[in-house]
Amino acid sequence: MLEFVSDGPVLTDEEIAERIPALRVDLVNAQFDLRTADFSVLVLVGGDDRLGANDAVQRMHEWMDARHIDTNIFRAPSADELARPRFWRYWRVLPPHGRIGVYLGAWAIVAVGQRARGVLDEAGFELRIKHIRQFERQLADDGTLVLKYWVHLPREKLQERMEKALADENYAWQLEEVDWQWYDIYDECLPHIDRLLKATNETDRPWHVLDSSNSALRDYTFARTLLDALQERLASPPSPKPVAKAVQKTYPDLLGQVDLGQAIPKNEYVELLAEYQVRLTKLTRRARQAGQSTVLVFEGWDAAGKGGAIRRLIQPMALIDYRVAQIAAPTDEERSRHYLWRFWRLLPEPGQIQIFDRSWYGRVLVERVEGFATPGEWQRAYREIRDFELQLAERGIIVEKFWLHIDADEQLRRFEARQQTAYKKYKITEEDYRNRQRWPEYAAAVNELVARTSRDHARWHLVAANDKRHARIEVLRVVCDALERALQDA
Amino acid sequence: MLEFVSDGPVLTDEEIAERIPALRVDLVNAQFDLRTADFSVLVLVGGDDRLGANDAVQRMHEWMDARHIDTNIFRAPSADELARPRFWRYWRVLPPHGRIGVYLGAWAIVAVGQRARGVLDEAGFELRIKHIRQFERQLADDGTLVLKYWVHLPREKLQERMEKALADENYAWQLEEVDWQWYDIYDECLPHIDRLLKATNETDRPWHVLDSSNSALRDYTFARTLLDALQERLASPPSPKPVAKAVQKTYPDLLGQVDLGQAIPKNEYVELLAEYQVRLTKLTRRARQAGQSTVLVFEGWDAAGKGGAIRRLIQPMALIDYRVAQIAAPTDEERSRHYLWRFWRLLPEPGQIQIFDRSWYGRVLVERVEGFATPGEWQRAYREIRDFELQLAERGIIVEKFWLHIDADEQLRRFEARQQTAYKKYKITEEDYRNRQRWPEYAAAVNELVARTSRDHARWHLVAANDKRHARIEVLRVVCDALERALQDA
Repeated sequence: MLEFVSDGPVLTDEEIAERIPALRVDLVNAQFDLRTADFSVLVLVGGDDRLGANDAVQRMHEWMDARHIDTNIFRAPSADELARPRFWRYWRVLPPHGRIGVYLGAWAIVAVGQRARGVLDEAGFELRIKHIRQFERQLADDGTLVLKYWVHLPREKLQERMEKALADENYAWQLEEVDWQWYDIYDECLPHIDRLLKATNETDRPWHVLDSSNSALRDYTFARTLLDALQERLASPPSPKPVAKAVQKTYPDLLGQVDLGQAIPKNEYVELLAEYQVRLTKLTRRARQAGQSTVLVFEGWDAAGKGGAIRRLIQPMALIDYRVAQIAAPTDEERSRHYLWRFWRLLPEPGQIQIFDRSWYGRVLVERVEGFATPGEWQRAYREIRDFELQLAERGIIVEKFWLHIDADEQLRRFEARQQTAYKKYKITEEDYRNRQRWPEYAAAVNELVARTSRDHARWHLVAANDKRHARIEVLRVVCDALERALQDA
Repeated sequence: MLEFVSDGPVLTDEEIAERIPALRVDLVNAQFDLRTADFSVLVLVGGDDRLGANDAVQRMHEWMDARHIDTNIFRAPSADELARPRFWRYWRVLPPHGRIGVYLGAWAIVAVGQRARGVLDEAGFELRIKHIRQFERQLADDGTLVLKYWVHLPREKLQERMEKALADENYAWQLEEVDWQWYDIYDECLPHIDRLLKATNETDRPWHVLDSSNSALRDYTFARTLLDALQERLASPPSPKPVAKAVQKTYPDLLGQVDLGQAIPKNEYVELLAEYQVRLTKLTRRARQAGQSTVLVFEGWDAAGKGGAIRRLIQPMALIDYRVAQIAAPTDEERSRHYLWRFWRLLPEPGQIQIFDRSWYGRVLVERVEGFATPGEWQRAYREIRDFELQLAERGIIVEKFWLHIDADEQLRRFEARQQTAYKKYKITEEDYRNRQRWPEYAAAVNELVARTSRDHARWHLVAANDKRHARIEVLRVVCDALERALQDA
């Protein structure tokens, strides 16, 4: 059923042995060139022959420079991993530019095993495949060289191999419970493997099926195909994907529909604030006990009052229940990976509220408007962001997003007031004034991102913020309601 | 018994309330200036009044810009943390330059509690204090502004507070089992607190004891002393510590004593290699099962054969049993913290072997000889390194260190041979030749570091490497013996 890849005609052991010295030199040299390249290599290795996959990777470590390979072996997820979205464990160890990351026992084999054991039904399997496609696509789109290997052994040969291993005291220990379990469901797995490989096989992230019944040829083919792909990429960067014609679709002017006249008088505000804060104290405590995690995103115009709204929000929370991240320039470790990596790093611990003061939406806001991201980058970001937030929601994480909205006049008033403030962080610069000139472009970007990324499980709230009191209460209300809903279901 | 710090005369609530607005402006402005400064702030907050300490930090979050404070609350260590040295959990979350890291429930309160409950005897407590002193000193020496607060409440008042809390449904939930346990040993703790505070109170990392019976004054004093220290540091960087007079102590010429004539004939080598590798396969497997972790350090002259020795070492290991890190230029996240931080990040998982191809010894080798580190930095590094390795050993981690030694003639021969090699990574540059001119200085640095950092629990092995076969077998032998010894004890 599975079709093997091989380096042209099947080679004899002697022919392979002859070619290996030159292959090793080429591999190490390609790695040397990779070190200063602006992309990373992700090698997914899975297969029905787990021991064979291990052996092939171990051989790769011998032939290449092991100091520049990060090999990750995924086993049963830890409690920490189970509390995060499924792909968190894969995201967090993404290799930086210049390095090779090997993933053993990762998403493909996990999905097949779960489908065969019935943990996933057909619909669940389809959804998983969708996530896998999306994950691999994001990496490939970002310039990562993605290579995937399925190490295959027919059932009879696997049985033979395992029995032989069992009899060899130097090898038997490598057999694990999981190997026998796998063997038991071997036949059920085959159609699912076939389905998964076909559904996730793409030109820019192809599957290679390695025949593990000839281990010398397997290791050679593994290394050879890896080398070919690496050399090709080093020689010529991928041509940028054609960017979808700017259909210049217009999105409804949601910002224009916000009633900026909404306001709350001071005495009413004081009462409401106290009321919501007492409610929030109790809700965050219950969320911690229930392990209910939350992600809150704050975006908005400069001087719209994000800081003040966040301060009112954390006031009633216990220290252990929240963390606030202000998103500024990425570090070089972050720049050296997919732009979403830094946000995957910041996902909340179980039961915590992670507050983002600015967020991944920078990609389709400032990076889009100021031209820091290419059209291809920001245009595909909507899909990437939707997938990211869907994964959070699927793990039961609350996601609420706020755009604090003021009009240009109110912003000007606040800028002028800030000239008088004693707070250095509020000092207005030329740049702040310059940004105002792009107001219509930013407004269009906001209307588009809200239309394209607001979902029931990750909703945008356009908060009227000309009146700060109204904005603060509105934020508190949304967060309280969301927590209440989630904890009711729990 | 504990002496309180206060802001001069005790202030009335009204006086405090009057001062707070200006204090908040100053705090936020100091934080703003800190963001571009080249140091970080570490605020340790502990105390017999845990709830009071929490409240004080929560108040600090309100008054300051919470987005630039990283608050870490330490509770019972996880399995992951227990497998690493005690200070790993504190090292890994060190704030980068420009940020404030708050540590709640950390090393001080833990040590006192363990002493009072008898987990630590007097000698153990003394040793812990030594480690605490060393940890705090390293940070302060590195330029971190270290501030320590002990939040204190007399026993009667603590009882009163807890009873009151228990009766208040909005507060009772904050009381935890640990609070009652602490209350039970309150009296036993006092002398140990006194001892610890006195032993770790230094001008550049002072303790402030806050009287928690007046919470307004407590919070004000906390913020006020923090502000004073921060402003003072921002205004004038600490004067560099006087560097110990270069006594120009000479160390025994250990390198000169290595018999570089040692060699192993090829046929004997093949047999020995196979023998040791079979042994190592079994030992690493047993180490994994036993959770026995290992740290191996490889240093040596350029072209001494580190890469080849490491390759022979990992060949017989299972993929899951080892990781190799090549230490090159630090990332900016690493540069923004104490130079040992990047190595704390790389400590092995339980049962794993972490191999360092170059290491923290760069501080007293290349950084010393080439002048990249100041005399103060590299001179204190010996002590810092000894403490680091002692902490590894105390957690049962094997530490073995190799200097691969060749003579200058052999190096030249290898450089010339490398001109012919097809491996790009071995290509010799002008710089390699230039480095040769500093041979005597490097040799002196090696002799000194071996004399000052070789310990029974973290031994240096000067390996004769003019003959590569001898060096490789020697490395294998040392690693096998070390594993065998450790597993015997287990």
